[in-house]
Amino acid sequence: MIHINHQEILNMDKIPRLNLINSCTGYKSANLIGSISADGITNVAVFSSVTHLGSNPPLLGFVLRPTTVPRNTFQNLKETREFTVNHIHAGMIADAHHTSAKYPGQVSEFDKTNLEPLFRDGFKAPYVDGAKIQIGCSYVNQYSIEENGCLFIIGSIQHIYFSSEIQLEDGFLALDRADTVTVNGLDGYALPRLIDRFDYARPK
Amino acid sequence: MIHINHQEILNMDKIPRLNLINSCTGYKSANLIGSISADGITNVAVFSSVTHLGSNPPLLGFVLRPTTVPRNTFQNLKETREFTVNHIHAGMIADAHHTSAKYPGQVSEFDKTNLEPLFRDGFKAPYVDGAKIQIGCSYVNQYSIEENGCLFIIGSIQHIYFSSEIQLEDGFLALDRADTVTVNGLDGYALPRLIDRFDYARPK
Repeated sequence: MIHINHQEILNMDKIPRLNLINSCTGYKSANLIGSISADGITNVAVFSSVTHLGSNPPLLGFVLRPTTVPRNTFQNLKETREFTVNHIHAGMIADAHHTSAKYPGQVSEFDKTNLEPLFRDGFKAPYVDGAKIQIGCSYVNQYSIEENGCLFIIGSIQHIYFSSEIQLEDGFLALDRADTVTVNGLDGYALPRLIDRFDYARPK
Repeated sequence: MIHINHQEILNMDKIPRLNLINSCTGYKSANLIGSISADGITNVAVFSSVTHLGSNPPLLGFVLRPTTVPRNTFQNLKETREFTVNHIHAGMIADAHHTSAKYPGQVSEFDKTNLEPLFRDGFKAPYVDGAKIQIGCSYVNQYSIEENGCLFIIGSIQHIYFSSEIQLEDGFLALDRADTVTVNGLDGYALPRLIDRFDYARPK
């Protein structure tokens, strides 16, 4: 096997290092986070760090670099305390990826792509129309990761929307029925197919 | 679309709530975390929360519930300050899932599955032999998530091992060449295939 140690990673050129380190932790979730500023400018941005945090209460987290691309998202969720998480499906990966372009705060990515905002049930932040699984979250807290200045944002799940054919009888959302994709590295989008599910594991 | 709100989630029975909330955030990384206690007892456990945190310095994070399944992992990484992250491939999903069974601390999951520990290059924590991408990490920090008592653990990437045919010229690890799987919900394992990669996005 190839072996690369810590010092060799630090010595790498930026692009190969970004590609290697972004892909070495495995597949990542592929979501569009929707938000809106206090003066009504919408924002939508691709995130690959949305993570399950707990079911009771229902919480999720995501990592945000306030000084780089998603700063509009951060400002919006501090202003309006709401954001949406929308699954990226195979048919929208080009538009989803384009939301990572650095547009100024007064430009909505909804105007620069074929993605359309969807407002419903009194929620301020826009959902992404056509996303097959959509979650409305309230902003709860942020933890500053002192090692590199990232923020770990905590959201409380307020609303979940999905098409009925995606859910199995036991509550499980069969993500392959939603054509939900997953992210490989910085820029790779992959489509999974379920292999198997297993029973709750007990000692043998 | 079906709509489930926060109060309805809280009112659900435990199992359907676990299935719904664990699957609603999208696909998750599928890794085995290897560790060892100060007195030499190895541990290996499946985690679906390993997340990229940054490339320079190379950092990753994962979520740990100290009071439930992976408590041996936590104790070990506090004692020996090292852990390994090993990609789960399609051929090892049954054994990987079985590591979530609650064995007491003096029992190694390596003795209860076909998984084999691999020690190399002076690293104390065991890698998982046969995993096609393996990472050695030093424990850096932990953040206590006050909303539900979880810990967000930060690791610094010290070593990366992988087969040469997995890596593309630009540094990217093509995870489908490694048969790396992804986790859907609590207990679903899915195999992705790359659809496309995109250039760095610029405003248009």
